[in-house]
Amino acid sequence: MIRQIKFSLPAYRYGFHIITDQVLREIGPLPETGILHLFIKHTSAGLMLNENADPSVLTDFETFFADWIPENYPKFEHAYEGKDDMPAHIKSTITGHSVTIPISNGRLNMGTWQGIYLGEFRYSGGRRKIVATLMY
Amino acid sequence: MIRQIKFSLPAYRYGFHIITDQVLREIGPLPETGILHLFIKHTSAGLMLNENADPSVLTDFETFFADWIPENYPKFEHAYEGKDDMPAHIKSTITGHSVTIPISNGRLNMGTWQGIYLGEFRYSGGRRKIVATLMY
Amino acid sequence: MIRQIKFSLPAYRYGFHIITDQVLREIGPLPETGILHLFIKHTSAGLMLNENADPSVLTDFETFFADWIPENYPKFEHAYEGKDDMPAHIKSTITGHSVTIPISNGRLNMGTWQGIYLGEFRYSGGRRKIVATLMY
Repeated sequence: MIRQIKFSLPAYRYGFHIITDQVLREIGPLPETGILHLFIKHTSAGLMLNENADPSVLTDFETFFADWIPENYPKFEHAYEGKDDMPAHIKSTITGHSVTIPISNGRLNMGTWQGIYLGEFRYSGGRRKIVATLMY
Repeated sequence: MIRQIKFSLPAYRYGFHIITDQVLREIGPLPETGILHLFIKHTSAGLMLNENADPSVLTDFETFFADWIPENYPKFEHAYEGKDDMPAHIKSTITGHSVTIPISNGRLNMGTWQGIYLGEFRYSGGRRKIVATLMY
Repeated sequence: MIRQIKFSLPAYRYGFHIITDQVLREIGPLPETGILHLFIKHTSAGLMLNENADPSVLTDFETFFADWIPENYPKFEHAYEGKDDMPAHIKSTITGHSVTIPISNGRLNMGTWQGIYLGEFRYSGGRRKIVATLMY
């Protein structure tokens, strides 16, 4: 069986953010056993999993990604939407635009320390549209 | 329900290419609600999502990836299949070998600016085999 | 239909490892047509696909990732779990925490040279928990 829920995340500032609780609120009751597929309908923001405990993990991600794909990369041609745009495209492809998480016993079967991250790679990305699909 | 379609992409030159229309032609009618899973049966080419509008995004991806994982990386040992081979392996793992896209109202529920990319990371990669699986 | 199998991988040393056969043993008989979703319940190890033939691909992956995300990265703040921890978080998000593979004719429909990789990004990561979900 398939169930789909569409919702928008509020605007987040540039960087990495834990959105697990927010996603669970939007989706409502989970099936007993299955898969949750979360998809972000944008090319300058990403979805991924990582540690949900220490906030410095979030800032270290931000720092590393910014150093690695700098806005002033001299060879980027695609810049008319702003200096943060082409780095945002690359970052989103590298983190990915979807996550798939098993559901067991009516709960997301993630590790204790795993959370769902939004990577907001633009300075003014605004609200972001998500499609959640439950397969069970 | 599950439906699977196997097809090959024609040979593309080295770089990033938008293949959304081609994929949709191969798959045929989509279910009302579900998930499309696209899988590439190779280790030197990848599938991902990104912007479908400005061609300079494609060339910027190519430039950035080539600078980042250079063919003359001095420590690579795996080189007997050519200088482009080990970079192609790494690039494909980083972009990924599959994409999963929600289907709503009988259409791929992507963002306006999202398209499906093939990353062809070899100079003569040839035809590439794809397995599309519809879950609905 | 959905079937789920939970198991643990034995402790692997730091680096990249081919685990295809081990995964298939744990899962048992595959359905005729469907999708295998493998999920790792950790934030410092990843799952991905790549070449299953030449061992130097595995060590080249290890070398490249270690050079790229070094343990002595001067700006990392999250270090109290060890110098290998923050690089492990980033590596795992980049490789990903799940793989999805089509099943056709009762077998994983991968390319001839594709295998399932575990990326063990900690020096003493220990056993790693996996959730396999079959959708068919």
